[in-house]
Amino acid sequence: MEEDGLLCPPINQVAGHYAEGGNIGPLIDKAGRFYKPLQNNQRGQHEVEFYEKFWADQTIPPIVQDLFPRFYGTRSVQASDETGMCEYAVIEDLTYHFHHPSVIDIKMGSRTWYPGATEEYIKKCLDKDGQSTSALLGFRLSGLQVYEIATKATWKPGKEWCNALSTEEVRLALKRFVSTNPFSETDPDGSLASFVYGEPGGVLSQLLELKSWFEEQTCFHFSSASILLIYEGDSKSTIQNSPRSGVSVKLVDFAHVINGQNIIDHNFLGGLCSLIKVISQTTADLGKKLPEEPPLTT
Amino acid sequence: MEEDGLLCPPINQVAGHYAEGGNIGPLIDKAGRFYKPLQNNQRGQHEVEFYEKFWADQTIPPIVQDLFPRFYGTRSVQASDETGMCEYAVIEDLTYHFHHPSVIDIKMGSRTWYPGATEEYIKKCLDKDGQSTSALLGFRLSGLQVYEIATKATWKPGKEWCNALSTEEVRLALKRFVSTNPFSETDPDGSLASFVYGEPGGVLSQLLELKSWFEEQTCFHFSSASILLIYEGDSKSTIQNSPRSGVSVKLVDFAHVINGQNIIDHNFLGGLCSLIKVISQTTADLGKKLPEEPPLTT
Repeated sequence: MEEDGLLCPPINQVAGHYAEGGNIGPLIDKAGRFYKPLQNNQRGQHEVEFYEKFWADQTIPPIVQDLFPRFYGTRSVQASDETGMCEYAVIEDLTYHFHHPSVIDIKMGSRTWYPGATEEYIKKCLDKDGQSTSALLGFRLSGLQVYEIATKATWKPGKEWCNALSTEEVRLALKRFVSTNPFSETDPDGSLASFVYGEPGGVLSQLLELKSWFEEQTCFHFSSASILLIYEGDSKSTIQNSPRSGVSVKLVDFAHVINGQNIIDHNFLGGLCSLIKVISQTTADLGKKLPEEPPLTT
Repeated sequence: MEEDGLLCPPINQVAGHYAEGGNIGPLIDKAGRFYKPLQNNQRGQHEVEFYEKFWADQTIPPIVQDLFPRFYGTRSVQASDETGMCEYAVIEDLTYHFHHPSVIDIKMGSRTWYPGATEEYIKKCLDKDGQSTSALLGFRLSGLQVYEIATKATWKPGKEWCNALSTEEVRLALKRFVSTNPFSETDPDGSLASFVYGEPGGVLSQLLELKSWFEEQTCFHFSSASILLIYEGDSKSTIQNSPRSGVSVKLVDFAHVINGQNIIDHNFLGGLCSLIKVISQTTADLGKKLPEEPPLTT
């Protein structure tokens, strides 16, 4: 691996583990790599094993591989709190190509526990799933940030705010995510919905590709994984080498992936179908509100 | 409604409530109608309301309506234990057109409870879902009967047997369901798989129609409902007026249907995708084992 250059904390992370309360946080380098500290309880090792297995599997089509972060192995480097050396998984920095990324983190599945987990863990997840929208919608928001180009400000509510949303508030948040006035609680314009969600190469078409794969694949069950949606919030910037119209859909968080045992991941797939429906409804509703073309006069 | 004629207990029911232990059981008449006693706790009334709403909804395509029993209203008749009058929901007798129906009852969803149920009810369902294949497979078997034409005998294991199956045993049961030697625990021939599961108009094509509807519909969430698969076990009989090649797919048990609130039923849909995959795998595995055509000689 080439030189890291300077490692520093990522500024565009919207959910997951941060360097706080004695935890060691993630780092990024200048070459587009994200250093994720290996978590305790073998979760970190588990995630590394998933990445190794996933990227070694030659049956996975390239169009599906594009929906996962690249993996560059593990690495021991100075911890973010400078207390010593720490082991990191090195993966693709998903916001590297963006100047002002707007990002939303959607935790998938109506249940975030997996069969066989401890009773205590299941109980904790059941409570969270019932208190958030997971049980009802099949997914919940874990974090988001939206760049407002007019004010050059970023709307970035906290995790607690995200988890407390009702199903209708999740719909509103998905609308604010594609608005040029995301700070508006009552009248977000949703004017980027067609570009971000609807167009060829946009979110919906990428989610449909993911769905096709989940209808077939029986290798992995993704408990507690997230889908990230990312687009360039500063439409005046040029996006460097960014694939697919600058709208990026990526799966992340694989500490609880288990062997699929020849069964499809119906929990993830059900939530994915629900997310596709909700985003389709949002896009269609906004489409209806656009001013109609004036009728042709003869 | 025309005269009932003689009402008698159904002989082809494989799961659900029976006339035993003080319970009033269902009845059938000679005209193809099934009388289901209205259950306590408003469950019966709830099921009636579902049928009324479903059959009044003109947006549901006929191809989907065909996957549900017809509904003929409610009726007060002499109870099956002759203790007095009882209120029944009158629906289509799904095995009416068959001489020796082979039937399997598959309870759908990785969870059989619905958000908002009592904690006690959720706990009971969670236990059952974890102990059966519901949590792992997204569905479980609730009952089955398979007619063996050579011996004129019917294999009909009990509910306890069904609920105790492992995922691999469920696969085997789905193979035995389409075998001419269903009593064989070790070497069922699966020779009816192509006819029952695979052919146009067979189980898989009907399940795919159902899946398309579930990807769109947001009116109903079907907690604890079942899919019945039915075919004529006596291949020498002529099936009277039977639609679609004599293989019937029907949804039943709507006592726990709740309003979808503009969200798709990701729990049912996830289980349905899993069932489609498992049946496809069974059909493909059996197809591979069929003797190959001898190569053409020149």
